[in-house]
Amino acid sequence: MKAGIVGATGYGGIELFRLLHNHPQVETITLYSSSQAGENFEEIYPQFQGGETHILQDLEPQKMKENLDVIFLATPAGVSSSLTPQLQEGRAKVIDLSGDLRLKDASVYKQWYKKEASDGETLEKAIYGLPEWNKEQIQTADIIANPGCYPTATLLGLGPLVKEGLVKSDSIIIDAKSGVSGAGKNPNPITHFAHAQENFQIYKVNQHQHIPEIEQQLFEWNDSIEPVTFSTHLVPMTRGIMATIYVQLKKEMTEEELREKYRNYYESQPFVRVRNKGSFPCTKDVYGTNYCDIGMTIDPRTKRVTVVSVIDNLMKGAATQAVQNMNLLFQYDERAGLAPLPVYP
Amino acid sequence: MKAGIVGATGYGGIELFRLLHNHPQVETITLYSSSQAGENFEEIYPQFQGGETHILQDLEPQKMKENLDVIFLATPAGVSSSLTPQLQEGRAKVIDLSGDLRLKDASVYKQWYKKEASDGETLEKAIYGLPEWNKEQIQTADIIANPGCYPTATLLGLGPLVKEGLVKSDSIIIDAKSGVSGAGKNPNPITHFAHAQENFQIYKVNQHQHIPEIEQQLFEWNDSIEPVTFSTHLVPMTRGIMATIYVQLKKEMTEEELREKYRNYYESQPFVRVRNKGSFPCTKDVYGTNYCDIGMTIDPRTKRVTVVSVIDNLMKGAATQAVQNMNLLFQYDERAGLAPLPVYP
Amino acid sequence: MKAGIVGATGYGGIELFRLLHNHPQVETITLYSSSQAGENFEEIYPQFQGGETHILQDLEPQKMKENLDVIFLATPAGVSSSLTPQLQEGRAKVIDLSGDLRLKDASVYKQWYKKEASDGETLEKAIYGLPEWNKEQIQTADIIANPGCYPTATLLGLGPLVKEGLVKSDSIIIDAKSGVSGAGKNPNPITHFAHAQENFQIYKVNQHQHIPEIEQQLFEWNDSIEPVTFSTHLVPMTRGIMATIYVQLKKEMTEEELREKYRNYYESQPFVRVRNKGSFPCTKDVYGTNYCDIGMTIDPRTKRVTVVSVIDNLMKGAATQAVQNMNLLFQYDERAGLAPLPVYP
Amino acid sequence: MKAGIVGATGYGGIELFRLLHNHPQVETITLYSSSQAGENFEEIYPQFQGGETHILQDLEPQKMKENLDVIFLATPAGVSSSLTPQLQEGRAKVIDLSGDLRLKDASVYKQWYKKEASDGETLEKAIYGLPEWNKEQIQTADIIANPGCYPTATLLGLGPLVKEGLVKSDSIIIDAKSGVSGAGKNPNPITHFAHAQENFQIYKVNQHQHIPEIEQQLFEWNDSIEPVTFSTHLVPMTRGIMATIYVQLKKEMTEEELREKYRNYYESQPFVRVRNKGSFPCTKDVYGTNYCDIGMTIDPRTKRVTVVSVIDNLMKGAATQAVQNMNLLFQYDERAGLAPLPVYP
Repeated sequence: MKAGIVGATGYGGIELFRLLHNHPQVETITLYSSSQAGENFEEIYPQFQGGETHILQDLEPQKMKENLDVIFLATPAGVSSSLTPQLQEGRAKVIDLSGDLRLKDASVYKQWYKKEASDGETLEKAIYGLPEWNKEQIQTADIIANPGCYPTATLLGLGPLVKEGLVKSDSIIIDAKSGVSGAGKNPNPITHFAHAQENFQIYKVNQHQHIPEIEQQLFEWNDSIEPVTFSTHLVPMTRGIMATIYVQLKKEMTEEELREKYRNYYESQPFVRVRNKGSFPCTKDVYGTNYCDIGMTIDPRTKRVTVVSVIDNLMKGAATQAVQNMNLLFQYDERAGLAPLPVYP
Repeated sequence: MKAGIVGATGYGGIELFRLLHNHPQVETITLYSSSQAGENFEEIYPQFQGGETHILQDLEPQKMKENLDVIFLATPAGVSSSLTPQLQEGRAKVIDLSGDLRLKDASVYKQWYKKEASDGETLEKAIYGLPEWNKEQIQTADIIANPGCYPTATLLGLGPLVKEGLVKSDSIIIDAKSGVSGAGKNPNPITHFAHAQENFQIYKVNQHQHIPEIEQQLFEWNDSIEPVTFSTHLVPMTRGIMATIYVQLKKEMTEEELREKYRNYYESQPFVRVRNKGSFPCTKDVYGTNYCDIGMTIDPRTKRVTVVSVIDNLMKGAATQAVQNMNLLFQYDERAGLAPLPVYP
Repeated sequence: MKAGIVGATGYGGIELFRLLHNHPQVETITLYSSSQAGENFEEIYPQFQGGETHILQDLEPQKMKENLDVIFLATPAGVSSSLTPQLQEGRAKVIDLSGDLRLKDASVYKQWYKKEASDGETLEKAIYGLPEWNKEQIQTADIIANPGCYPTATLLGLGPLVKEGLVKSDSIIIDAKSGVSGAGKNPNPITHFAHAQENFQIYKVNQHQHIPEIEQQLFEWNDSIEPVTFSTHLVPMTRGIMATIYVQLKKEMTEEELREKYRNYYESQPFVRVRNKGSFPCTKDVYGTNYCDIGMTIDPRTKRVTVVSVIDNLMKGAATQAVQNMNLLFQYDERAGLAPLPVYP
Repeated sequence: MKAGIVGATGYGGIELFRLLHNHPQVETITLYSSSQAGENFEEIYPQFQGGETHILQDLEPQKMKENLDVIFLATPAGVSSSLTPQLQEGRAKVIDLSGDLRLKDASVYKQWYKKEASDGETLEKAIYGLPEWNKEQIQTADIIANPGCYPTATLLGLGPLVKEGLVKSDSIIIDAKSGVSGAGKNPNPITHFAHAQENFQIYKVNQHQHIPEIEQQLFEWNDSIEPVTFSTHLVPMTRGIMATIYVQLKKEMTEEELREKYRNYYESQPFVRVRNKGSFPCTKDVYGTNYCDIGMTIDPRTKRVTVVSVIDNLMKGAATQAVQNMNLLFQYDERAGLAPLPVYP
């Protein structure tokens, strides 16, 4: 198959390149970059030298949609909303890693992203690519809205509880922490090494654009869910997200019953691992992989549930999840090309 | 004045040494270590060479209590519970940095620390050394139970809200994050660099021994408070704690009113800084200092309050707070010897 | 094929497990651990859960050498010197990742390792597994002495210059820097996160046991070479080695001629990449891979050559190099199972 | 006294502010910034809130030189070369932390800095502010050229050997490593956290502008010295420099004799500490201080000397050394305001 990556020089694009390069079904990879077209990808990133070289291409939507089987959009917010429609009605499937096509309600997009949303038809066609919960729809989609990093960790952690209506509707608090790569490749004062190292920062309190994405899916699972509290922090590490999730149950339940719910939902999902009693994942447990590891407990003193969900923000939170979606779109083995074990230490 | 440090080679002891060395009122510092008595402190820690040398002394409680003005106990849990009584009835004041004397209820201590508590008289005499809330009692104390690192950040962040009864009694959730030095100097697999770096870990979920310490003080401020949810995480950095605190208010309040409450309590406190609207502290803002910086907001969507409280766990969470307590015990300027500005970057 | 890993719970063993798990030719992996026999590997390392489970086995040399095709020894110094002889005369090939079988001269081993060397026959049979320079011998070996991490980076960086006799015999200085994982999994004060982070340390000055290993190979290439200066430093990162190498040339040469020498030697080697003029590798360029990247320049002011050689100490410096040797031993594609592109960022 | 800091918002300026704020002799500090004039320093850096506030001022050389006692220039290369002359003939002494006034030969400056040098008179008046070697000249200077970070570590490490003519003139190699703050506050791809963390980089090989500064001083000590080899690396930490220095001796010497030379030169210098046999400093040993710690050994195999010299690049390599120079200029205690002990861990 022939794959294209738009925005190939950003963190998401780089990881897609690495993954597709190792993917058994991908024959050619074409790299696109509006800002660096004409440059040699392997000169910008000499760590990828050793095989064939790739010249960054200018975008030509007409040609792309006819010649490629799949196009990954690893672009900043505001690009794919207008680019995706131009890539329709051809041969190519589109997998968008940005937030542009995730929110069904254009006004909500505008409110949180401060940009105009894509057209209604495109938003309608875009299927939310969370494979563990949406596999069937993904398999027949033309456009995939690949989930955000925080929503992936959060929704996989909350899914069983919310889907089954076990949670008090106004009790959900998500305290999320991310490695610095989540802020993207553009250098700025917040991601300067000397500022970010030996530092722990909170940002966008109550204002992160992933909030409506989380709520949209929770609401789809259970329309009694009320707005959630969602906080984001920057950890002095490159990769990894932990979402520590607090909820109150409508009815008492034992920890075993709770864990059983999770196991029921995820036992057939190759990339979600539910931990045993007393074991909680750390972010390194999923480093460089498509795994989401989930631990949980109920505090006998407060009756509150704590769910701990970890992913690699650039992998299950972006690039490997996009490849997982590609695998589903093209009826490959869901695990094809997704290296199964994490690097340690 | 003559000061002694017991447990001088641990992280708390080292910082106490550094601080007392710079303190304008301290004339002599005697260092004690049961495991390394006889060794030269400046050979173990060559970074402190350049002035006089200190030989680590064996403990001699009788002599210590007569010859010293103040004794800092920077010892592991279980030591000061029996050592402190032996240091009474002499000239010396005792400032205990361990958790042994903080909990008034011996059975609660035993439950969370898995050790026998100190005797009732000692527990009774020990004054909880949180100067911003307890200054008068501290000034006349013989024994100070220096607060734990997490409780310091948490209690300073919650004080005004709980003291005034503004918070729904069962709504308090504290998601706390600490640098690795909080785990102490003894090497173990969790604090091995190759494991802890590029990693974010959760630990002791619902089981941290600082929970009863927090609840004891909250309850003293407001006896309607119910058990809190308190989570602890390990951040790949050496120093710093951030407590992200979530509460629901009994009655609606504007963010300005909320901030005003904090300012009222803390405007006369030299080491607590309340941030302006929209500004939240990061841990580096207090690195190496005795400051606690506090930011806050109310989410208009959920009505929930988020309070962000940061300290340096080894400073306001241990050594500088101990010196602040010493200053109060001896009627020195509360700020004496406490370097006022953080190192940056 | 059937593979066994002795010392499976150490850093080298863990990486071997991950690599063999992904290797197309490896059917079964048996894990051995003398200290943790009987335990479940996937419970010790929950990040590897998701597939089959492995119980750590006690060593049974007789059975191992008959049932296994290849045995990797990822053991501390002093183990394989006595274990390897017990694994001979069977079906299994042995790849030893420790330093026990690298030095041909038993007295040199004893001098630098402070232990007794293996027997003469075993030392004789052990082939130094640096594939870029020793491929033919490796292919027919029974025992491979897998090179040390520092020697790998150093020797690949010095090979063309020394082999061709271009270097002044007493002018070689290697200033080497390693990530902390090189110190192994056992926690100690030097590798404690709070000590190693935000710190740069020099250690074993002029006394590192890799010095004789480097000199032995240099001498084999060119017996006029005199003792080298070799320094080792600990970098606050988990993985990666950079060797900055300084030499003086016997005769003047242009930088282009120099680079050409390197290209001649390495153009057919899939895992050594020679950088273009003005480009120097950083350790992240080879993170998680079997690559060794080499940059070089000649200072017109001093006429001194600087060669910069980087590897991932746990990969080309240990586990992937061992798999590369396995591939050669069994006539597989040299690149089989060795992920070709580095993770970035 | 009245102090001014030009370039107050850069890393050097921030540290100067912190130091002068704690300095017993400094009454007022005025902060200047051409790019952020009019802004509130404590709003840009909320970590400094708690005392008086400072509005960043526009440069007014005429007024500054009349009203201030000392002016620190913490500006990028190319600023002080033209600003310093405008600050002459008034009351103020000038301490320049940039490289503009360090090189006596204008053509050398131009060659390495790619900018025009300052005028000859200013260059002539500027005294190289390395107090351990230049105290007398400093005390009567009007302009101090504060040494660069790398030259400070290097020259203190080489001084005794070169001054006494013990070193083979063409044998000096300096392999230097620095924390990321040395690259300054402006964000760029090299200092992006996600790139710099878990990475070790070499840069400006043989081309660093500190090379002529080092050679100028070495030559002044001993005019037979030939060009040196000097390499610079970026360590994934914020602060700290280690210079690992290799030299060959003209005549054999014991390690004891060597150490004695260093002790003779530095025993009266409060900020240089010579380590005992077998002890080598790490960068954390001088974190946040004005110390330079020096260890050394002679390799019996190669006869080569290894000297290890560490400083905090923002302190002894910039801000504290500038304050040390101020103390000398104004006949204060050389140690005034310079916190004597390093933060650990």
